Amino acid sequence: MSRFRLGIDIGGTNTTFGIVDASGKIVAKSSISTRGHNSPETFVAALFEEYKKAFDRTLQDGVTHIGVGAPNGNYYTGNIEFAPNLEWKGVIRLAELIEAQFQRPTKVSNDANAAAMGEMMYGAAQGMKDFIMVTLGTGVGSGFVANGQVIYGHDGFAGELGHVIAVRDGRQCGCGRKGCLETYTSATGIVKTVYEFLTKDSRATPLREKQDITAKDIYDAACLGDAMALEIFDYTGKILGQTLADAVAITSPEAIILFGGLAQAGDYIMNPTRNYMEENLLHIFKNKVKLIPSLLKESDVAILGAAALD
Amino acid sequence: MSRFRLGIDIGGTNTTFGIVDASGKIVAKSSISTRGHNSPETFVAALFEEYKKAFDRTLQDGVTHIGVGAPNGNYYTGNIEFAPNLEWKGVIRLAELIEAQFQRPTKVSNDANAAAMGEMMYGAAQGMKDFIMVTLGTGVGSGFVANGQVIYGHDGFAGELGHVIAVRDGRQCGCGRKGCLETYTSATGIVKTVYEFLTKDSRATPLREKQDITAKDIYDAACLGDAMALEIFDYTGKILGQTLADAVAITSPEAIILFGGLAQAGDYIMNPTRNYMEENLLHIFKNKVKLIPSLLKESDVAILGAAALD
Repeated sequence: MSRFRLGIDIGGTNTTFGIVDASGKIVAKSSISTRGHNSPETFVAALFEEYKKAFDRTLQDGVTHIGVGAPNGNYYTGNIEFAPNLEWKGVIRLAELIEAQFQRPTKVSNDANAAAMGEMMYGAAQGMKDFIMVTLGTGVGSGFVANGQVIYGHDGFAGELGHVIAVRDGRQCGCGRKGCLETYTSATGIVKTVYEFLTKDSRATPLREKQDITAKDIYDAACLGDAMALEIFDYTGKILGQTLADAVAITSPEAIILFGGLAQAGDYIMNPTRNYMEENLLHIFKNKVKLIPSLLKESDVAILGAAALD
Repeated sequence: MSRFRLGIDIGGTNTTFGIVDASGKIVAKSSISTRGHNSPETFVAALFEEYKKAFDRTLQDGVTHIGVGAPNGNYYTGNIEFAPNLEWKGVIRLAELIEAQFQRPTKVSNDANAAAMGEMMYGAAQGMKDFIMVTLGTGVGSGFVANGQVIYGHDGFAGELGHVIAVRDGRQCGCGRKGCLETYTSATGIVKTVYEFLTKDSRATPLREKQDITAKDIYDAACLGDAMALEIFDYTGKILGQTLADAVAITSPEAIILFGGLAQAGDYIMNPTRNYMEENLLHIFKNKVKLIPSLLKESDVAILGAAALD
């Protein structure tokens, strides 16, 4: 009998889940809506129903562990705690509910820490004991791994690199403070940068013709050689590189792995980030830390990360 | 037979060492000069000679482990690597030399990581699995502990909080970069602040009468209620508190333990540091992280920290 893991990714809108084999292949996959359930209990019941319907009995029988990536998921307690983008408020005893329903040991974590586990088990961090995973999506998340273990911290919520102050008294962040890394280096942050550039600079650029600019538009403009788009990536890479250099001084990782929408801009974002990081590193860390893209498919990482929780 | 540990602290000038019992008491202590030895080999031979002379045979026989705190000491290799303030250049295979001479398993680390171990085994961090030790001395060092283990990082040199950029383009640091935390919050950093304040501000203050101001003079002035001295502690605590708030976002510690000359200023430095840290913390970390002074005696911590290495 093969041994499988079930990875569940709870997003604000949809919950996707899949059965993962030992090589990191998702052998079966399904999803339900996260919304419209009266309670966490009915949500978990609906999840179990779809699980039984979608997957062969052989696969189900082979599942030995369940991992869940969820916003504000706490690894220690197995709870979701006060997630702003879910319909259920307060503390949800998610691991307990899932274990009761599925009869399998269940771990819960937030998305970025799960992604770090996925990268370590199946992706670019295989064999590494010390690395930093940075997810550059709508927000900026991170998972720090040291001595082969994710750093969850005393309360289970460690790894909030997106809320390190990158620019003192800088841009207003949704968290209520100013200058957080994610206000500059998330998909939404870099779009803010575009509008700042367009306001202060009258050059012609394809970006000026667009409405509702997205991170993808900046990438497309950079591919056309647009100078402003390249400067925007440079500006973003500078702020990211400076902040990463400080993170390196704390945990001295073997590698920093970038993942998410902005990381898909490839060299346009990797090169300035790497250069500014190196420029800002303390001498003992120079030319030691690899800055690399994730090896996992964007569509797979959430399930793989959740499945890798242990 | 009691089981003891030998802790050795190699400083730029002196090497002190002591036998530590299981309760964290230094039961015997001695020292030799770090300088004036032709080679690391003759230094270790001199250390062994003094060890045999200074300590009872019963104590020697009870020693089961040796730990060494040394500048640029690398936990993984047991080597001292390119320490700027020692006479021996390059890479010194210290653990190997000591093991050969003393016939005991030997671990090497830098001073701040050793201090973190000492605090965990004998001091304020007993029972904690996640904390940050910050040493505010001539420089600023730190040891980060997560999941009950010191974070040494990929290369053995993690924990350089003193070289996180606290003020972008700020004061020139000895490391060649600008604005490192230690240029503001070390004993020498706070003295720089005094001279800046005295230059830009013509108020009367006992500090103006002093030559070669030290951190102790600032403390003494604060005790007399001197407004400028209090503002200097506030300024220093602000920079330290802001930087600690960012470190908390990464490792989410149960406590941050302050040690060293500046920490001895007690509430004058602890209160502003705590207030600015809280003000700058991401909401999920507010009112969770203890900021506390070390419980170890200044004169003991280097030996206790070294002895605690494992």
